[in-house]
Amino acid sequence: MNDKSIRLAVAQINPTVGDIRGNLDLIISNMRQAAEAGADLVVFPELALTGYPPEDLVFKSSFVEDNLKALQEAAAASTGITAILGFIDRRDDIFNAAALLHDGEVAGVYHKRFLPDYGVFDESRYFRAGQGELIFSLHGLKLGVTICEDIWYPAEPLLGLAGEGVEMVVNISASPYHLRKAAQREKMLSVRASDYLMSVVYVNMVGGQDELVFDGISMVFDECGNLVDRAAAFTEDLRLVDLDLKGILHQRLRDSRWRKLHLPRLGATDGIIHLGELQTGAKSPEVIRNPEPLLEDMEEIRRALRLGLHDYVRKNGFNTVVIGLSGGIDSALVAVLAAEALGAENVRCVYMPSRFSAEISRQGAADLCVNLGIEMLTLPIDGVMESYLTELAPAFAGLSPNIAEENIQARIRGNLLYALSNKFGWLVLTTGNKSEMSVGYSTLYGDMAGGLAVIKDLPKTMVYSLCRHINREREIIPEMIITRLPSAELRPDQLDTDSLPPYDILDPILEAYIEDELGADEIDFAPHELVSRVIAMVDRNEYKRRQAPPGIKITTRAFGRDRRYPITNHYR
Amino acid sequence: MNDKSIRLAVAQINPTVGDIRGNLDLIISNMRQAAEAGADLVVFPELALTGYPPEDLVFKSSFVEDNLKALQEAAAASTGITAILGFIDRRDDIFNAAALLHDGEVAGVYHKRFLPDYGVFDESRYFRAGQGELIFSLHGLKLGVTICEDIWYPAEPLLGLAGEGVEMVVNISASPYHLRKAAQREKMLSVRASDYLMSVVYVNMVGGQDELVFDGISMVFDECGNLVDRAAAFTEDLRLVDLDLKGILHQRLRDSRWRKLHLPRLGATDGIIHLGELQTGAKSPEVIRNPEPLLEDMEEIRRALRLGLHDYVRKNGFNTVVIGLSGGIDSALVAVLAAEALGAENVRCVYMPSRFSAEISRQGAADLCVNLGIEMLTLPIDGVMESYLTELAPAFAGLSPNIAEENIQARIRGNLLYALSNKFGWLVLTTGNKSEMSVGYSTLYGDMAGGLAVIKDLPKTMVYSLCRHINREREIIPEMIITRLPSAELRPDQLDTDSLPPYDILDPILEAYIEDELGADEIDFAPHELVSRVIAMVDRNEYKRRQAPPGIKITTRAFGRDRRYPITNHYR
Repeated sequence: MNDKSIRLAVAQINPTVGDIRGNLDLIISNMRQAAEAGADLVVFPELALTGYPPEDLVFKSSFVEDNLKALQEAAAASTGITAILGFIDRRDDIFNAAALLHDGEVAGVYHKRFLPDYGVFDESRYFRAGQGELIFSLHGLKLGVTICEDIWYPAEPLLGLAGEGVEMVVNISASPYHLRKAAQREKMLSVRASDYLMSVVYVNMVGGQDELVFDGISMVFDECGNLVDRAAAFTEDLRLVDLDLKGILHQRLRDSRWRKLHLPRLGATDGIIHLGELQTGAKSPEVIRNPEPLLEDMEEIRRALRLGLHDYVRKNGFNTVVIGLSGGIDSALVAVLAAEALGAENVRCVYMPSRFSAEISRQGAADLCVNLGIEMLTLPIDGVMESYLTELAPAFAGLSPNIAEENIQARIRGNLLYALSNKFGWLVLTTGNKSEMSVGYSTLYGDMAGGLAVIKDLPKTMVYSLCRHINREREIIPEMIITRLPSAELRPDQLDTDSLPPYDILDPILEAYIEDELGADEIDFAPHELVSRVIAMVDRNEYKRRQAPPGIKITTRAFGRDRRYPITNHYR
Repeated sequence: MNDKSIRLAVAQINPTVGDIRGNLDLIISNMRQAAEAGADLVVFPELALTGYPPEDLVFKSSFVEDNLKALQEAAAASTGITAILGFIDRRDDIFNAAALLHDGEVAGVYHKRFLPDYGVFDESRYFRAGQGELIFSLHGLKLGVTICEDIWYPAEPLLGLAGEGVEMVVNISASPYHLRKAAQREKMLSVRASDYLMSVVYVNMVGGQDELVFDGISMVFDECGNLVDRAAAFTEDLRLVDLDLKGILHQRLRDSRWRKLHLPRLGATDGIIHLGELQTGAKSPEVIRNPEPLLEDMEEIRRALRLGLHDYVRKNGFNTVVIGLSGGIDSALVAVLAAEALGAENVRCVYMPSRFSAEISRQGAADLCVNLGIEMLTLPIDGVMESYLTELAPAFAGLSPNIAEENIQARIRGNLLYALSNKFGWLVLTTGNKSEMSVGYSTLYGDMAGGLAVIKDLPKTMVYSLCRHINREREIIPEMIITRLPSAELRPDQLDTDSLPPYDILDPILEAYIEDELGADEIDFAPHELVSRVIAMVDRNEYKRRQAPPGIKITTRAFGRDRRYPITNHYR
């Protein structure tokens, strides 16, 4: 069987952080399916046993211990197949690791060498960087193992693996989604394959975990960098892929760059694990699958939000969500996404008008609910508002209404939604977008009150684009909600533009400042005075964001773990 | 003047994150004072120019640029003196650095070698670890420079410095406070000095920055590990210290351990910066100061909270705070601390009774306000509560009162406090303790609503101890507030013990689980069923803590940046 042909199973699974038993069951079930389909090798994502990121759970010795016991169970279940599985290893230190399981045993272990400490990652907090390689032979093929960040580096560890003659590298990942990242990964992986004339098998996690969505889209490349398979986006997928690499040596020997790059180490075979041949299940006929298509931007975002929302709600034990509808575009979008993620029957919508609410708001909210098949609960807030004003009248005597009165209204709505949440066990979804969150155009404990801020990382202009995308086939979001001028409706005739520049001017400034980390002097496409005012608003409102619910990361720089700013900060 | 005698100035200053201009002024003013007092060398804390921790401000190139310009200004101001100053260096990468300033020039730079990535620290996110040493000679003394974490390691970089014959090591720090850390630092620094027969000059930052308090307590040790000076705790201090190390070589040559440890590198002088002699100001007579005393535990905590509170309020531009008094011990303690930190005239107290509030609560709150000299505003909440219940009556028809009605009350109080905050520009202080925050015995957007959670890291048993300490000399907190049984007063005859074990049983379990990271099976001093129930409460309430205001770190493991748990977490 030394023909360099292999049947791979790429197990793109959705584990849950901390659910070691449930994750193990999922892994064993995928391993069995793969074995039954005649796969020689099945690969699972990074830290598949524990879920990713486990954060400070790693500091619990019982947690690491439980994961090690589960690894032994996974190994015992690997009869008749070879598997690569992400777990936490404990030696003289703690490592982000991959185990090579083979026919009931742990045949080898690899420790991640490059630990990311940027963006949402804190891996140096938890793990020691590994040294060394894990190389094994199977069916006459020489395979190497890497973990996530490792393969983003152009030289080591791939350079070393190539020098050892490795023909196929497996990369197990838990790579969080942001817009267009799949295309970026695909380009990079393809070049890695062709640079090293090495087949690349990339398996990514899928699922939502707090602020992060793992998008899946696992991929297999041949040794020339051609895409052989691409798994589905935003859903579990077990992909079977037949690969034949018998031409690889011929390729390498006629490639002058490859020979110069790797010659020094070529031929060394020290430390390579030779796996015995297994009696695999009867192979079904050759698997011919078309790679799943990449999604266009707006559909990608929609699916990311839907998965992130679904998994946050369900993994935290909720069935039903409740949303305060304002008649505006943000809450309409969140309601649509919730209905898509959870089913309309699990979404409750509440309209809470005040004396400042326009009839068009009620109409928009009501029409949306009709379109979604959701009954709308109406709770007017003027009575409660009156009782607050009466209570505060002595303290406020002689002072004009200002932001204080506006915020009371928003907080009454928050209190009403949480009364429903507490009474019926519904999770509250907030509806604020990234533009608002950036400049603090929102009320802490008011419209910011909720368990999950679904569109927190979507700039307002992106909210519009996504709504138009959703309405492409039929009008789900009433057109008047999209076309009306945005208003918080907290005082008579209020418009967002009373306090903020138009969103098509605001959003590019925010992107330059937040995503690109540019200073006021470097943002030259808008008047300097405006840029400075916007930046000051962003900085001043860090205290609000610190108390905001988690939101789903969509851009390259989301608020939350991804962007760590001091509250007390005099830099301007 | 090669007599190995030196006059040091230890400038324990309180910079503000991002206020590069203000910090520079503070630095220059301390430098001038030191020079006028005849100091040869003045030392400033780690990242004194930018404040610590600057967090993601480091990613702004304009921020790093401004700090480099300020460094040049500081250098220019160093005429007639030598200084060590913490700043951010930019070469081929970004470094946490110390500059050696000498008579108007930057004479050398050191890059921090050990970057902490545990607890509240994320330095690998921002900086590259340095290599190499900074050694300079002054007055015939050989001095080396280290930054904070560097000196917590027993071997390098001190080993290398000793090998070069360094006689005095300067360590510039921004070391955050936790209970009894000063004593731990002092012991370690003393042993470092005696291990290497090297005088240790340790300068720590002082001041509050969001969740952190820097306690100061800078120290100077002679080459035998004897404490020569200790600066004040929790306040700025410019210490002048005269040291004479002419006996150091004699000490070293008769110490067998020292000679064996350092022999290989001894005598190498490569890369040592020889500073010229300066015309220093007329030296006043020898400075003889007694080291400031260490504080006992409760006074230490009181001073830490006072400083953290003061700096959070003032550095964020507030004058006045507002506190909801319940008549219970937590809010009483916060009011006392606020009055100590800001002056009673800058503290507003609001009592917000409901039908469930006992007369003893009103009396306790009122008596406390009399003791503090604060007028108490009373805002009963039953009227507003009625309006909510009326509004919700159709939705809640046929259902019994439960936590929903309890939480509405807490949120009415939050809304009233924020109405006052919004109207008058007062910062709201929350009053929850660590025991409550741990098990979620608090209402999100209710009693958790505020800008700063002053005693968030104090377990309830510590709250009692601190109150008794405060009352030691005279009764500030009315005795009945301390002795009554704790109650949230959200339903008739409610007691904390209805929902929670007594605090003297609860707190040790929480400490074992949170600070010591023990699992349920390892906590054997309480019934297993109780331990499991407590742990489940802690884990389940991570979502509340994620939206809590920042609080002042007092223990070894505070909630916030110090403890990073997933919300979605199935590990039990």
